[in-house]
Amino acid sequence: MKKPLILITNDDGINAPGIRYLIETMRPLGDILVIAPDKPQSAMGHAVTIHSPLRIYKIAETPGYREYSCNGTPADCVKVGEKVILRGKPDLIVSGINHGSNASINILYSGTMAAVIEGAMENVPSIGFSLNDYTYTADFSHCGKVVTSVASNVLKNGLPDGICLNVNIPQINGSNVKGIMVTKQAKAFWDENFDERKDPHKHDYYWLRGEFVNLDEGEDNDYWAINNNYVSIVPVQIDLTAHHMIDQIKKWNLEA
Amino acid sequence: MKKPLILITNDDGINAPGIRYLIETMRPLGDILVIAPDKPQSAMGHAVTIHSPLRIYKIAETPGYREYSCNGTPADCVKVGEKVILRGKPDLIVSGINHGSNASINILYSGTMAAVIEGAMENVPSIGFSLNDYTYTADFSHCGKVVTSVASNVLKNGLPDGICLNVNIPQINGSNVKGIMVTKQAKAFWDENFDERKDPHKHDYYWLRGEFVNLDEGEDNDYWAINNNYVSIVPVQIDLTAHHMIDQIKKWNLEA
Repeated sequence: MKKPLILITNDDGINAPGIRYLIETMRPLGDILVIAPDKPQSAMGHAVTIHSPLRIYKIAETPGYREYSCNGTPADCVKVGEKVILRGKPDLIVSGINHGSNASINILYSGTMAAVIEGAMENVPSIGFSLNDYTYTADFSHCGKVVTSVASNVLKNGLPDGICLNVNIPQINGSNVKGIMVTKQAKAFWDENFDERKDPHKHDYYWLRGEFVNLDEGEDNDYWAINNNYVSIVPVQIDLTAHHMIDQIKKWNLEA
Repeated sequence: MKKPLILITNDDGINAPGIRYLIETMRPLGDILVIAPDKPQSAMGHAVTIHSPLRIYKIAETPGYREYSCNGTPADCVKVGEKVILRGKPDLIVSGINHGSNASINILYSGTMAAVIEGAMENVPSIGFSLNDYTYTADFSHCGKVVTSVASNVLKNGLPDGICLNVNIPQINGSNVKGIMVTKQAKAFWDENFDERKDPHKHDYYWLRGEFVNLDEGEDNDYWAINNNYVSIVPVQIDLTAHHMIDQIKKWNLEA
Protein backbone atom coordinates (compact mmCIF):
# COMPACT_ATOMS: atom_id res chain seq x y z
CA MET A 1 0.00 0.00 0.00
CA LYS A 2 1.23 3.47 -0.83
CA LYS A 3 2.30 5.37 2.24
CA PRO A 4 0.35 8.53 2.99
CA LEU A 5 2.12 11.79 2.27
CA ILE A 6 2.14 14.03 5.33
CA LEU A 7 2.95 17.75 5.34
CA ILE A 8 4.22 19.08 8.66
CA THR A 9 4.45 22.74 9.61
CA ASN A 10 4.17 24.98 12.67
CA ASP A 11 4.37 28.61 13.76
CA ASP A 12 7.15 28.47 16.34
CA GLY A 13 9.72 27.98 13.60
CA ILE A 14 11.45 24.94 12.17
CA ASN A 15 13.89 24.53 15.05
CA ALA A 16 11.31 24.57 17.85
CA PRO A 17 11.28 21.43 20.02
CA GLY A 18 7.53 21.05 19.37
CA ILE A 19 7.90 20.47 15.63
CA ARG A 20 10.97 18.28 16.09
CA TYR A 21 8.92 16.07 18.41
CA LEU A 22 5.99 16.07 15.97
CA ILE A 23 8.26 15.06 13.07
CA GLU A 24 9.68 12.08 14.97
CA THR A 25 6.18 11.03 16.01
CA MET A 26 4.76 11.25 12.50
CA ARG A 27 7.61 9.54 10.59
CA PRO A 28 6.29 5.98 11.12
CA LEU A 29 2.92 7.02 9.67
CA GLY A 30 3.97 8.04 6.17
CA ASP A 31 6.29 9.92 3.85
CA ILE A 32 7.06 13.31 5.31
CA LEU A 33 7.43 16.80 3.91
CA VAL A 34 8.41 19.33 6.55
CA ILE A 35 8.05 22.95 5.49
CA ALA A 36 8.06 25.41 8.34
CA PRO A 37 8.88 29.05 8.99
CA ASP A 38 12.55 29.91 9.34
CA LYS A 39 11.72 32.05 12.38
CA PRO A 40 8.91 32.18 14.96
CA GLN A 41 5.56 33.28 13.53
CA SER A 42 3.33 33.09 16.59
CA ALA A 43 0.20 35.22 16.63
CA MET A 44 0.42 35.72 12.88
CA GLY A 45 -3.15 34.56 12.42
CA HIS A 46 -4.00 33.68 8.86
CA ALA A 47 -1.50 36.13 7.36
CA VAL A 48 -0.25 35.36 3.88
CA THR A 49 2.65 36.98 2.06
CA ILE A 50 1.54 38.73 -1.08
CA HIS A 51 3.69 41.87 -1.19
CA SER A 52 7.12 40.25 -0.97
CA PRO A 53 8.70 37.16 -2.48
CA LEU A 54 8.95 33.86 -0.66
CA ARG A 55 12.10 31.81 -0.51
CA ILE A 56 12.58 28.20 0.50
CA TYR A 57 15.72 26.43 1.67
CA LYS A 58 16.23 22.68 1.55
CA ILE A 59 17.52 21.33 4.85
CA ALA A 60 17.35 17.57 4.39
CA GLU A 61 16.30 14.93 1.88
CA THR A 62 16.41 11.19 2.51
CA PRO A 63 14.06 8.48 1.20
CA GLY A 64 10.57 9.26 2.47
CA TYR A 65 11.66 12.49 4.14
CA ARG A 66 12.16 16.05 2.96
CA GLU A 67 12.63 19.15 5.05
CA TYR A 68 12.53 22.80 4.02
CA SER A 69 12.40 26.15 5.76
CA CYS A 70 10.51 29.11 4.31
CA ASN A 71 10.64 32.83 5.04
CA GLY A 72 6.85 33.07 5.14
CA THR A 73 3.99 32.47 7.53
CA PRO A 74 2.51 29.06 8.43
CA ALA A 75 -0.27 29.56 5.84
CA ASP A 76 2.41 30.41 3.26
CA CYS A 77 4.25 27.20 4.16
CA VAL A 78 1.19 25.10 3.32
CA LYS A 79 0.73 26.89 0.00
CA VAL A 80 4.41 26.66 -0.97
CA GLY A 81 4.63 23.06 0.19
CA GLU A 82 1.76 22.06 -2.06
CA LYS A 83 2.32 24.28 -5.06
CA VAL A 84 6.10 24.49 -5.32
CA ILE A 85 7.44 21.34 -3.66
CA LEU A 86 4.76 18.65 -3.92
CA ARG A 87 3.02 20.01 -7.03
CA GLY A 88 -0.07 18.41 -5.51
CA LYS A 89 -1.86 17.85 -2.24
CA PRO A 90 -0.65 15.82 0.72
CA ASP A 91 -2.91 13.22 2.33
CA LEU A 92 -2.65 14.93 5.69
CA ILE A 93 -1.40 18.21 7.15
CA VAL A 94 -0.27 18.36 10.77
CA SER A 95 0.81 21.58 12.44
CA GLY A 96 2.57 22.05 15.76
CA ILE A 97 3.16 20.90 18.31
CA ASN A 98 2.56 24.47 19.38
CA HIS A 99 4.34 25.74 22.47
CA GLY A 100 1.20 26.99 24.18
CA SER A 101 -2.54 26.38 24.10
CA ASN A 102 -4.67 27.17 21.08
CA ALA A 103 -7.86 26.43 22.96
CA SER A 104 -10.84 28.80 22.88
CA ILE A 105 -10.48 32.06 20.94
CA ASN A 106 -6.72 31.58 20.65
CA ILE A 107 -7.52 29.67 17.47
CA LEU A 108 -8.26 33.01 15.82
CA TYR A 109 -4.78 34.42 16.54
CA SER A 110 -2.86 31.22 15.97
CA GLY A 111 -0.44 30.70 13.10
CA THR A 112 -0.39 26.99 13.92
CA MET A 113 -4.15 26.79 13.40
CA ALA A 114 -4.04 29.09 10.35
CA ALA A 115 -1.96 26.42 8.58
CA VAL A 116 -4.60 23.87 9.56
CA ILE A 117 -7.47 26.07 8.41
CA GLU A 118 -5.58 26.65 5.15
CA GLY A 119 -5.57 22.87 4.73
CA ALA A 120 -9.31 22.72 5.39
CA MET A 121 -9.87 25.43 2.78
CA GLU A 122 -8.16 23.11 0.30
CA ASN A 123 -10.10 20.07 1.57
CA VAL A 124 -6.95 18.36 2.86
CA PRO A 125 -7.52 16.60 6.23
CA SER A 126 -5.63 18.77 8.69
CA ILE A 127 -4.88 18.71 12.40
CA GLY A 128 -3.31 21.25 14.72
CA PHE A 129 -1.60 20.04 17.88
CA SER A 130 -0.83 22.37 20.78
CA LEU A 131 0.57 21.73 24.24
CA ASN A 132 -0.67 23.86 27.12
CA ASP A 133 2.89 24.89 28.02
CA TYR A 134 4.43 28.06 26.58
CA THR A 135 8.03 27.30 27.50
CA TYR A 136 10.68 26.40 24.95
CA THR A 137 11.78 23.48 27.14
CA ALA A 138 8.26 22.04 27.48
CA ASP A 139 7.98 18.28 28.09
CA PHE A 140 6.25 16.75 25.04
CA SER A 141 6.78 13.12 26.05
CA HIS A 142 3.10 12.43 26.77
CA CYS A 143 1.99 13.86 23.41
CA GLY A 144 3.18 11.04 21.15
CA LYS A 145 0.38 8.61 21.84
CA VAL A 146 -2.30 11.27 21.29
CA VAL A 147 -0.70 12.55 18.09
CA THR A 148 -0.39 9.04 16.67
CA SER A 149 -3.93 8.14 17.62
CA VAL A 150 -5.59 11.26 16.23
CA ALA A 151 -3.49 11.28 13.05
CA SER A 152 -4.16 7.57 12.42
CA ASN A 153 -7.88 8.11 12.88
CA VAL A 154 -7.91 11.03 10.47
CA LEU A 155 -5.90 9.07 7.90
CA LYS A 156 -8.41 6.23 8.24
CA ASN A 157 -11.69 8.19 8.53
CA GLY A 158 -10.87 11.38 6.66
CA LEU A 159 -12.57 14.66 7.48
CA PRO A 160 -15.44 16.34 5.62
CA ASP A 161 -14.59 19.22 3.31
CA GLY A 162 -14.00 22.45 5.19
CA ILE A 163 -13.55 20.74 8.59
CA CYS A 164 -10.27 20.43 10.51
CA LEU A 165 -9.27 19.53 14.06
CA ASN A 166 -7.87 21.69 16.85
CA VAL A 167 -6.19 19.32 19.31
CA ASN A 168 -4.97 20.74 22.62
CA ILE A 169 -2.94 18.62 24.99
CA PRO A 170 -2.73 19.31 28.73
CA GLN A 171 0.50 20.01 30.56
CA ILE A 172 0.37 17.13 33.01
CA ASN A 173 3.30 17.77 35.35
CA GLY A 174 3.93 14.14 36.18
CA SER A 175 0.29 13.04 36.47
CA ASN A 176 -1.49 11.15 33.68
CA VAL A 177 -3.63 12.24 30.77
CA LYS A 178 -7.14 11.30 31.86
CA GLY A 179 -8.49 10.77 28.35
CA ILE A 180 -9.72 12.54 25.23
CA MET A 181 -12.71 14.86 25.06
CA VAL A 182 -14.31 15.82 21.75
CA THR A 183 -15.62 19.20 22.68
CA LYS A 184 -16.21 22.83 21.69
CA GLN A 185 -14.45 26.18 21.72
CA ALA A 186 -14.71 27.81 25.17
CA LYS A 187 -16.14 31.30 25.53
CA ALA A 188 -13.30 33.42 26.81
CA PHE A 189 -11.42 36.63 26.20
CA TRP A 190 -8.04 38.20 26.70
CA ASP A 191 -8.03 40.91 29.35
CA GLU A 192 -5.30 42.95 27.75
CA ASN A 193 -3.49 46.13 28.27
CA PHE A 194 -0.35 47.78 27.03
CA ASP A 195 2.81 48.32 28.94
CA GLU A 196 3.55 51.98 28.21
CA ARG A 197 7.21 52.91 27.97
CA LYS A 198 9.46 55.67 26.73
CA ASP A 199 12.37 55.00 24.40
CA PRO A 200 15.77 56.70 24.93
CA HIS A 201 14.55 59.54 22.69
CA LYS A 202 11.53 60.10 24.97
CA HIS A 203 9.01 58.72 22.49
CA ASP A 204 6.20 56.51 23.75
CA TYR A 205 5.93 52.89 22.77
CA TYR A 206 3.56 50.11 23.81
CA TRP A 207 3.95 46.37 24.41
CA LEU A 208 0.90 44.18 24.43
CA ARG A 209 0.37 42.04 27.51
CA GLY A 210 -2.70 40.22 28.71
CA GLU A 211 -4.35 37.63 30.78
CA PHE A 212 -6.67 34.93 29.47
CA VAL A 213 -10.10 34.98 31.12
CA ASN A 214 -12.40 31.99 30.77
CA LEU A 215 -16.11 32.89 30.84
CA ASP A 216 -17.36 29.40 30.12
CA GLU A 217 -18.74 27.71 33.20
CA GLY A 218 -19.44 24.44 31.42
CA GLU A 219 -17.34 21.31 31.52
CA ASP A 220 -17.81 20.57 27.83
CA ASN A 221 -15.27 22.94 26.32
CA ASP A 222 -11.62 22.89 25.35
CA TYR A 223 -10.43 25.21 28.12
CA TRP A 224 -11.99 23.04 30.82
CA ALA A 225 -10.59 19.89 29.21
CA ILE A 226 -6.94 20.90 29.13
CA ASN A 227 -7.12 22.37 32.60
CA ASN A 228 -8.46 19.07 33.90
CA ASN A 229 -5.85 16.80 32.30
CA TYR A 230 -7.93 15.84 29.27
CA VAL A 231 -6.85 16.14 25.67
CA SER A 232 -9.34 18.36 23.81
CA ILE A 233 -10.34 17.78 20.21
CA VAL A 234 -12.50 20.52 18.70
CA PRO A 235 -13.79 20.03 15.16
CA VAL A 236 -13.42 23.39 13.43
CA GLN A 237 -15.24 24.73 10.39
CA ILE A 238 -14.19 27.37 7.89
CA ASP A 239 -17.75 28.59 7.43
CA LEU A 240 -17.97 31.51 9.84
CA THR A 241 -21.60 32.32 9.00
CA ALA A 242 -23.80 32.74 12.07
CA HIS A 243 -26.68 31.00 10.29
CA HIS A 244 -29.07 31.50 13.20
CA MET A 245 -28.73 35.28 12.85
CA ILE A 246 -29.72 35.55 9.19
CA ASP A 247 -33.49 35.70 9.73
CA GLN A 248 -33.12 38.13 12.60
CA ILE A 249 -31.11 40.63 10.56
CA LYS A 250 -33.53 40.30 7.65
CA LYS A 251 -36.10 42.00 9.90
CA TRP A 252 -33.99 45.16 10.18
CA ASN A 253 -34.95 48.23 8.25
CA LEU A 254 -32.06 48.22 5.78
CA GLU A 255 -31.64 50.39 2.73
CA ALA A 256 -29.17 50.44 -0.13
CA MET B 1 -28.53 62.18 24.08
CA LYS B 2 -24.87 61.21 24.21
CA LYS B 3 -23.42 60.60 20.77
CA PRO B 4 -22.15 57.09 20.12
CA LEU B 5 -18.36 56.65 20.05
CA ILE B 6 -17.25 55.00 16.82
CA LEU B 7 -13.82 53.45 16.23
CA ILE B 8 -12.79 53.31 12.56
CA THR B 9 -9.95 51.22 11.16
CA ASN B 10 -8.99 49.31 8.01
CA ASP B 11 -6.20 47.22 6.52
CA ASP B 12 -5.35 49.22 3.42
CA GLY B 13 -3.69 51.90 5.55
CA ILE B 14 -4.84 55.22 6.91
CA ASN B 15 -4.45 57.08 3.63
CA ALA B 16 -6.47 54.69 1.49
CA PRO B 17 -9.48 56.27 -0.24
CA GLY B 18 -11.74 53.57 1.23
CA ILE B 19 -11.16 54.62 4.85
CA ARG B 20 -11.31 58.32 3.98
CA TYR B 21 -14.74 57.73 2.42
CA LEU B 22 -15.83 55.66 5.43
CA ILE B 23 -14.73 58.40 7.85
CA GLU B 24 -16.73 61.06 6.03
CA THR B 25 -19.78 58.79 5.91
CA MET B 26 -19.61 57.93 9.62
CA ARG B 27 -18.98 61.41 11.01
CA PRO B 28 -22.68 62.42 11.20
CA LEU B 29 -23.40 59.27 13.24
CA GLY B 30 -21.23 59.91 16.28
CA ASP B 31 -17.91 60.90 17.81
CA ILE B 32 -15.11 59.37 15.83
CA LEU B 33 -11.78 57.76 16.72
CA VAL B 34 -9.80 56.74 13.65
CA ILE B 35 -6.87 54.46 14.35
CA ALA B 36 -5.54 52.68 11.31
CA PRO B 37 -2.30 51.11 10.09
CA ASP B 38 0.36 53.51 8.86
CA LYS B 39 0.94 51.22 5.85
CA PRO B 40 -1.11 48.62 3.95
CA GLN B 41 -1.76 45.45 5.95
CA SER B 42 -3.83 43.44 3.50
CA ALA B 43 -3.90 39.65 3.89
CA MET B 44 -2.54 39.99 7.42
CA GLY B 45 -5.35 37.81 8.79
CA HIS B 46 -5.73 38.09 12.53
CA ALA B 47 -2.07 38.84 13.14
CA VAL B 48 -1.22 40.70 16.34
CA THR B 49 2.10 42.25 17.27
CA ILE B 50 3.59 40.68 20.37
CA HIS B 51 7.33 40.58 19.64
CA SER B 52 7.87 44.25 18.86
CA PRO B 53 6.61 47.50 20.31
CA LEU B 54 3.73 49.44 18.88
CA ARG B 55 3.81 53.15 18.26
CA ILE B 56 0.98 55.55 17.58
CA TYR B 57 1.06 58.95 15.94
CA LYS B 58 -1.63 61.59 16.39
CA ILE B 59 -2.72 63.04 13.06
CA ALA B 60 -5.72 65.19 13.98
CA GLU B 61 -7.88 66.21 16.91
CA THR B 62 -10.95 68.39 16.69
CA PRO B 63 -14.14 68.28 18.79
CA GLY B 64 -15.74 64.87 18.27
CA TYR B 65 -12.92 63.68 16.04
CA ARG B 66 -9.52 62.10 16.69
CA GLU B 67 -7.25 60.40 14.19
CA TYR B 68 -4.15 58.28 14.81
CA SER B 69 -1.93 55.99 12.78
CA CYS B 70 -0.30 52.91 14.26
CA ASN B 71 2.59 50.74 13.10
CA GLY B 72 0.64 47.55 13.82
CA THR B 73 -1.97 45.35 12.20
CA PRO B 74 -5.72 46.08 12.04
CA ALA B 75 -6.30 43.86 15.10
CA ASP B 76 -3.56 45.79 16.91
CA CYS B 77 -5.29 49.05 16.01
CA VAL B 78 -8.49 47.93 17.74
CA LYS B 79 -6.59 46.89 20.86
CA VAL B 80 -4.51 50.08 21.01
CA GLY B 81 -7.52 52.25 20.23
CA GLU B 82 -9.41 50.81 23.16
CA LYS B 83 -6.66 50.28 25.71
CA VAL B 84 -4.34 53.21 25.09
CA ILE B 85 -6.46 55.96 23.54
CA LEU B 86 -10.06 55.42 24.68
CA ARG B 87 -9.28 53.57 27.93
CA GLY B 88 -12.61 51.90 27.32
CA LYS B 89 -14.76 50.42 24.63
CA PRO B 90 -16.37 52.25 21.71
CA ASP B 91 -20.06 51.79 20.95
CA LEU B 92 -19.29 50.59 17.44
CA ILE B 93 -16.30 49.49 15.37
CA VAL B 94 -16.35 49.89 11.60
CA SER B 95 -13.53 48.67 9.38
CA GLY B 96 -12.89 49.40 5.72
CA ILE B 97 -14.07 50.29 3.25
CA ASN B 98 -11.79 47.57 1.95
CA HIS B 99 -10.47 47.91 -1.57
CA GLY B 100 -11.59 44.46 -2.68
CA SER B 101 -14.15 41.83 -1.72
CA ASN B 102 -14.02 40.01 1.58
CA ALA B 103 -16.82 37.68 0.57
CA SER B 104 -16.57 33.92 1.02
CA ILE B 105 -13.32 32.51 2.45
CA ASN B 106 -11.55 35.83 1.96
CA ILE B 107 -12.81 36.69 5.42
CA LEU B 108 -10.19 34.31 6.81
CA TYR B 109 -7.28 36.18 5.19
CA SER B 110 -8.65 39.66 5.68
CA GLY B 111 -7.09 42.21 7.98
CA THR B 112 -10.21 44.36 7.61
CA MET B 113 -12.35 41.55 8.97
CA ALA B 114 -9.77 40.62 11.64
CA ALA B 115 -10.35 44.04 13.18
CA VAL B 116 -14.08 43.34 13.11
CA ILE B 117 -13.67 39.87 14.61
CA GLU B 118 -11.43 41.41 17.27
CA GLY B 119 -14.35 43.69 18.11
CA ALA B 120 -16.72 40.71 18.31
CA MET B 121 -14.28 38.96 20.66
CA GLU B 122 -14.63 41.97 22.94
CA ASN B 123 -18.42 42.09 22.49
CA VAL B 124 -18.33 45.46 20.75
CA PRO B 125 -20.79 45.66 17.81
CA SER B 126 -18.54 45.60 14.76
CA ILE B 127 -19.00 45.83 11.00
CA GLY B 128 -16.60 45.30 8.12
CA PHE B 129 -17.32 47.03 4.82
CA SER B 130 -15.67 45.95 1.58
CA LEU B 131 -16.17 47.04 -2.02
CA ASN B 132 -15.78 44.47 -4.77
CA ASP B 133 -13.16 46.60 -6.54
CA TYR B 134 -9.45 46.14 -5.84
CA THR B 135 -8.27 49.36 -7.44
CA TYR B 136 -6.94 52.31 -5.47
CA THR B 137 -9.14 54.65 -7.50
CA ALA B 138 -12.33 52.64 -6.89
CA ASP B 139 -15.63 54.55 -6.99
CA PHE B 140 -17.15 54.43 -3.49
CA SER B 141 -19.97 56.88 -4.16
CA HIS B 142 -22.76 54.27 -4.00
CA CYS B 143 -21.49 52.92 -0.64
CA GLY B 144 -22.56 55.78 1.61
CA LYS B 145 -26.25 54.92 1.83
CA VAL B 146 -25.48 51.27 2.65
CA VAL B 147 -22.86 52.15 5.25
CA THR B 148 -25.16 54.62 6.96
CA SER B 149 -28.10 52.22 6.93
CA VAL B 150 -26.21 49.21 8.28
CA ALA B 151 -24.32 51.24 10.89
CA SER B 152 -27.52 52.96 12.08
CA ASN B 153 -29.27 49.63 12.41
CA VAL B 154 -26.41 48.15 14.42
CA LEU B 155 -26.30 51.21 16.68
CA LYS B 156 -30.04 50.82 17.21
CA ASN B 157 -30.38 47.03 17.45
CA GLY B 158 -26.95 46.01 18.71
CA LEU B 159 -25.44 42.63 17.93
CA PRO B 160 -25.31 39.55 20.17
CA ASP B 161 -21.99 38.78 21.89
CA GLY B 162 -19.50 37.12 19.56
CA ILE B 163 -21.37 38.13 16.38
CA CYS B 164 -20.21 40.71 13.82
CA LEU B 165 -21.15 41.65 10.26
CA ASN B 166 -19.28 41.16 7.01
CA VAL B 167 -20.77 43.62 4.51
CA ASN B 168 -19.68 43.39 0.89
CA ILE B 169 -20.77 45.99 -1.62
CA PRO B 170 -20.93 45.32 -5.37
CA GLN B 171 -18.98 47.27 -7.92
CA ILE B 172 -21.88 48.58 -9.96
CA ASN B 173 -20.25 50.31 -12.93
CA GLY B 174 -22.99 52.85 -13.45
CA SER B 175 -25.97 50.58 -12.82
CA ASN B 176 -27.87 50.57 -9.52
CA VAL B 177 -27.54 48.54 -6.34
CA LYS B 178 -30.49 46.16 -6.51
CA GLY B 179 -30.89 45.79 -2.76
CA ILE B 180 -29.47 44.14 0.33
CA MET B 181 -29.25 40.39 0.90
CA VAL B 182 -28.63 38.93 4.35
CA THR B 183 -26.88 35.77 3.35
CA LYS B 184 -24.08 33.27 4.04
CA GLN B 185 -20.42 32.72 3.24
CA ALA B 186 -20.03 31.13 -0.22
CA LYS B 187 -18.12 27.90 -0.65
CA ALA B 188 -15.11 28.77 -2.76
CA PHE B 189 -11.36 28.45 -2.94
CA TRP B 190 -8.32 30.18 -4.35
CA ASP B 191 -6.73 28.29 -7.21
CA GLU B 192 -3.23 29.46 -6.51
CA ASN B 193 0.21 28.97 -7.79
CA PHE B 194 3.54 30.66 -7.45
CA ASP B 195 5.33 32.65 -10.06
CA GLU B 196 8.81 31.16 -9.93
CA ARG B 197 11.64 33.57 -10.64
CA LYS B 198 15.39 33.87 -10.24
CA ASP B 199 17.00 36.85 -8.56
CA PRO B 200 20.15 38.50 -10.03
CA HIS B 201 22.21 36.11 -7.91
CA LYS B 202 20.49 33.10 -9.52
CA HIS B 203 18.52 32.20 -6.39
CA ASP B 204 14.90 31.12 -6.72
CA TYR B 205 12.07 33.15 -5.31
CA TYR B 206 8.31 32.79 -5.46
CA TRP B 207 5.40 35.21 -5.72
CA LEU B 208 1.94 34.07 -4.80
CA ARG B 209 -0.75 34.55 -7.43
CA GLY B 210 -4.18 33.03 -7.71
CA GLU B 211 -7.65 32.99 -9.06
CA PHE B 212 -10.80 32.87 -6.96
CA VAL B 213 -13.04 29.92 -7.83
CA ASN B 214 -16.63 29.88 -6.63
CA LEU B 215 -17.98 26.38 -6.00
CA ASP B 216 -21.31 27.50 -4.63
CA GLU B 217 -24.13 27.06 -7.13
CA GLY B 218 -26.73 28.62 -4.85
CA GLU B 219 -28.09 32.15 -5.06
CA ASP B 220 -28.13 32.61 -1.30
CA ASN B 221 -24.48 33.41 -0.68
CA ASP B 222 -22.26 36.47 -0.53
CA TYR B 223 -20.37 35.75 -3.73
CA TRP B 224 -23.57 35.47 -5.76
CA ALA B 225 -24.96 38.64 -4.15
CA ILE B 226 -22.09 40.97 -4.99
CA ASN B 227 -21.79 39.56 -8.49
CA ASN B 228 -25.47 40.30 -9.07
CA ASN B 229 -25.46 43.91 -7.84
CA TYR B 230 -26.73 43.16 -4.34
CA VAL B 231 -25.08 44.25 -1.13
CA SER B 232 -24.29 41.17 0.96
CA ILE B 233 -24.51 41.12 4.75
CA VAL B 234 -23.19 37.95 6.37
CA PRO B 235 -23.53 37.61 10.14
CA VAL B 236 -20.25 36.12 11.35
CA GLN B 237 -19.53 34.21 14.55
CA ILE B 238 -16.27 33.78 16.42
CA ASP B 239 -17.18 30.26 17.54
CA LEU B 240 -15.49 28.10 14.90
CA THR B 241 -16.70 24.82 16.44
CA ALA B 242 -18.26 22.46 13.91
CA HIS B 243 -20.87 21.38 16.46
CA HIS B 244 -22.44 18.83 14.10
CA MET B 245 -19.14 16.92 13.93
CA ILE B 246 -18.69 16.38 17.68
CA ASP B 247 -20.78 13.23 17.97
CA GLN B 248 -19.27 11.76 14.83
CA ILE B 249 -15.69 12.12 16.08
CA LYS B 250 -16.67 10.71 19.47
CA LYS B 251 -17.24 7.40 17.67
CA TRP B 252 -13.61 7.20 16.58
CA ASN B 253 -11.25 4.83 18.33
CA LEU B 254 -9.11 7.44 20.07
CA GLU B 255 -6.45 6.84 22.68
CA ALA B 256 -4.40 9.11 24.90
